[in-house]
Amino acid sequence: MDFQRRLADIVGAGNVLTAAEDVKPYFIDARRLYTAGRAECVVRPASTAEVSRLVALCAAEDVAIVPQGGNTGLSGGSVPTGARREIVLSLSRMNRIRSLDALNDTITVEAGCVLATVQQAAEDAGRFFPLSLGAEGSCQIGGNLSTNAGGVNVLRYGMAREQVLGLEVVLPDGRVWDGLRGLRKDNTGYDLKQLFVGAEGTLGIITAAVLRLRPKPTANVTAFIGVESPRHAVELLAALRGRLGERLSAFELISRPSLEAVVSHLKDKDPLPAPHPWYVLSEIADGGETTLLREQVEQALAGAAEDGWLRDATLAQSVTQARGLWKLRESIPEAQFVNVKHDISVAASRIPELVDRLAAALRAKYPDVYPYVFGHVGDGNLHYNVGPEKMVKERPAVNRIVYDVVAELGGSISAEHGLGQLKREEIRRHKSALELELMAALKRTLDPKGIMNPGKVL
Amino acid sequence: MDFQRRLADIVGAGNVLTAAEDVKPYFIDARRLYTAGRAECVVRPASTAEVSRLVALCAAEDVAIVPQGGNTGLSGGSVPTGARREIVLSLSRMNRIRSLDALNDTITVEAGCVLATVQQAAEDAGRFFPLSLGAEGSCQIGGNLSTNAGGVNVLRYGMAREQVLGLEVVLPDGRVWDGLRGLRKDNTGYDLKQLFVGAEGTLGIITAAVLRLRPKPTANVTAFIGVESPRHAVELLAALRGRLGERLSAFELISRPSLEAVVSHLKDKDPLPAPHPWYVLSEIADGGETTLLREQVEQALAGAAEDGWLRDATLAQSVTQARGLWKLRESIPEAQFVNVKHDISVAASRIPELVDRLAAALRAKYPDVYPYVFGHVGDGNLHYNVGPEKMVKERPAVNRIVYDVVAELGGSISAEHGLGQLKREEIRRHKSALELELMAALKRTLDPKGIMNPGKVL
Repeated sequence: MDFQRRLADIVGAGNVLTAAEDVKPYFIDARRLYTAGRAECVVRPASTAEVSRLVALCAAEDVAIVPQGGNTGLSGGSVPTGARREIVLSLSRMNRIRSLDALNDTITVEAGCVLATVQQAAEDAGRFFPLSLGAEGSCQIGGNLSTNAGGVNVLRYGMAREQVLGLEVVLPDGRVWDGLRGLRKDNTGYDLKQLFVGAEGTLGIITAAVLRLRPKPTANVTAFIGVESPRHAVELLAALRGRLGERLSAFELISRPSLEAVVSHLKDKDPLPAPHPWYVLSEIADGGETTLLREQVEQALAGAAEDGWLRDATLAQSVTQARGLWKLRESIPEAQFVNVKHDISVAASRIPELVDRLAAALRAKYPDVYPYVFGHVGDGNLHYNVGPEKMVKERPAVNRIVYDVVAELGGSISAEHGLGQLKREEIRRHKSALELELMAALKRTLDPKGIMNPGKVL
Repeated sequence: MDFQRRLADIVGAGNVLTAAEDVKPYFIDARRLYTAGRAECVVRPASTAEVSRLVALCAAEDVAIVPQGGNTGLSGGSVPTGARREIVLSLSRMNRIRSLDALNDTITVEAGCVLATVQQAAEDAGRFFPLSLGAEGSCQIGGNLSTNAGGVNVLRYGMAREQVLGLEVVLPDGRVWDGLRGLRKDNTGYDLKQLFVGAEGTLGIITAAVLRLRPKPTANVTAFIGVESPRHAVELLAALRGRLGERLSAFELISRPSLEAVVSHLKDKDPLPAPHPWYVLSEIADGGETTLLREQVEQALAGAAEDGWLRDATLAQSVTQARGLWKLRESIPEAQFVNVKHDISVAASRIPELVDRLAAALRAKYPDVYPYVFGHVGDGNLHYNVGPEKMVKERPAVNRIVYDVVAELGGSISAEHGLGQLKREEIRRHKSALELELMAALKRTLDPKGIMNPGKVL
């Protein structure tokens, strides 16, 4: 019996896609950087048992597997490379919320649940699931965990990794590891789930997870703040954290060029009356009443202004206004799409130095370079996109300049987007031989046949 | 040249201890459960380079290594077993705080730093390091990380694992992995540091760490609350988290027998005028003013009382009173020392069922059993100690009853104390064959000679 027939025996013929128009969306990544890779087919299992049987079959046939969630990743980790026999295994049909335990503050979900669906289920139970990012309407939680997704709430709640209490994983030989425990404390040996979070599907397939829920904030304040420089932004962050503590949920830096690009793109207007060189968009959330929180934020901002850390600030007067401010932030990527993108991080204290040195290093070679700088400055993470459009031709040279500065400052060349195919070669310049050796050893231990998402990460 | 001479060449003769009176405190665990194990000597390196050379020498000579911090562990993980040639490697002299970056909210410390010293350094910089537990005056941060320590602030801030941004580790062949990054976001491959946190020194020796700091709470309220039952405590937790959000830092359950034991032991008095079957000690902390927070806590408690979740409550009126209430909680272990102890966890929602079923299962066999129940109910973690004293003779049978009930409820037999020697055999009844196989595979991959802390964990 041929291979595709045996796949169909497991998932049903209708869930083995081979027609060109059916498979196309599974083979091309969100940024359309990887459009040439082909797999034999796309399979769409409906259960962990089916995933297990599919993987066992592939292991026996030496066919590689590309696990895929919402296919919204930005590093080409979720599409085939075409370098060998492989299939795309889509988790989309595994989209059940298995259970929610409000008294334990946990939710158990299948990998194919769309992130926004998980957020909504938490909300319906009077709880809050904090993972939040631009693609939340289509990305899937299995992909979020496999890439250790970040987003705008990391400052307060941490990355995807910190939301996970338990996992169910299909291993590269098809066996199912049931680690679906909803325990906050379990010190009984190696914490196996940590291996699979952020492994980009190279060590196994996450099929389900137990996630932590949080108390739902009832008061929200959104502030748009003009600042002099990245240094002022970082000092402002420390000042506000000192005054507002962990109520500070988000703290996003936006450069004037980024704001101008997005205001023009959205045909919106400047949130502040006069222009400023840099801006911060901050969200402050708490369990009490908005009126009270608003007063506290106003006091904190006034204090920071006295200390000289900000030039002007406005608070959203309504939910609609707050959404408008966030829309500005979230539309920056589409407003300046054609340029050379970077997702980099350093210690938050080194952000000012990073911004200065990057600009100097780039201008030394390209005098008319035009960087769009924005991102999660509270986490030391910037999206540093180098325009104008013609710079795209210079991508490798621009990447080199940026990554070398990041390396000198002890930073990361992929803060939240992962390595995928995009940075798989580049990372070899940045990690020690020992670290690469340890990663390879883990890969060999868990996936000796090398069938899990080959050509990604390592 | 003999082995001890070569050790002395690395650390100096004064730092190779062999005299019986010198080595004794390193060979016996804090609970004096393991008093018979002997190692060849105790070595006390002063730097990562010395640790590296020591481990390389031991690897060449096939001598095993027992890494030891403050030796305060409760599962016998930090003392020699005596089963083979081994040395104790004490990290105590590596006690420098290497740096503190207030704008990045990080501190870089050596493994031998006492936990209280780390807390104090954070405090001095206007920040907060939340890991807090009974032994904080003598336990060392390297041990805290190697055992993934818990404590009273886990509800809000997470376990030791969640405080770690970077590690420096000496691997079992003596090579040094420098993962001392202070980045909040770094998605560049497998997160190697997660392997070593909670591995109890079986995969390598943590020599230094970069830890996250938090905003320092400026307002603290301590509440002592009488409740009807564990179910009421769990419902109260949900009610208070709904009203106070993540300001709830600690939420400890105390049974009436535990309170009576400790009040008598300390010659203190009952914090509430009338007796109650169960109590909750809760800490609420925030960045604002205590007066305001106090009002908010009073309102939240009044609301919870209306819903029937509490019988009576008192708030500490001063720092001294708050310390007195915490002293009651922290002295429970010493007030009822001779009994059969357990450190168990379940989903917080199952705590009421756990308490009921444990009492029923134990009473069926031992009608006059007297459990002392207390612990971190907000994390689903109880310290369940079975008296009276004569029960100690029945330890294996009592353990069996308790662990079987925990297993039926999907819980953990070691919530925060680790496996060490104490639960190394027992855990084999509770983990799947696949999970044990994965743990053994990781051990073989990282420590193929099996020289790192043998006889612990697996």
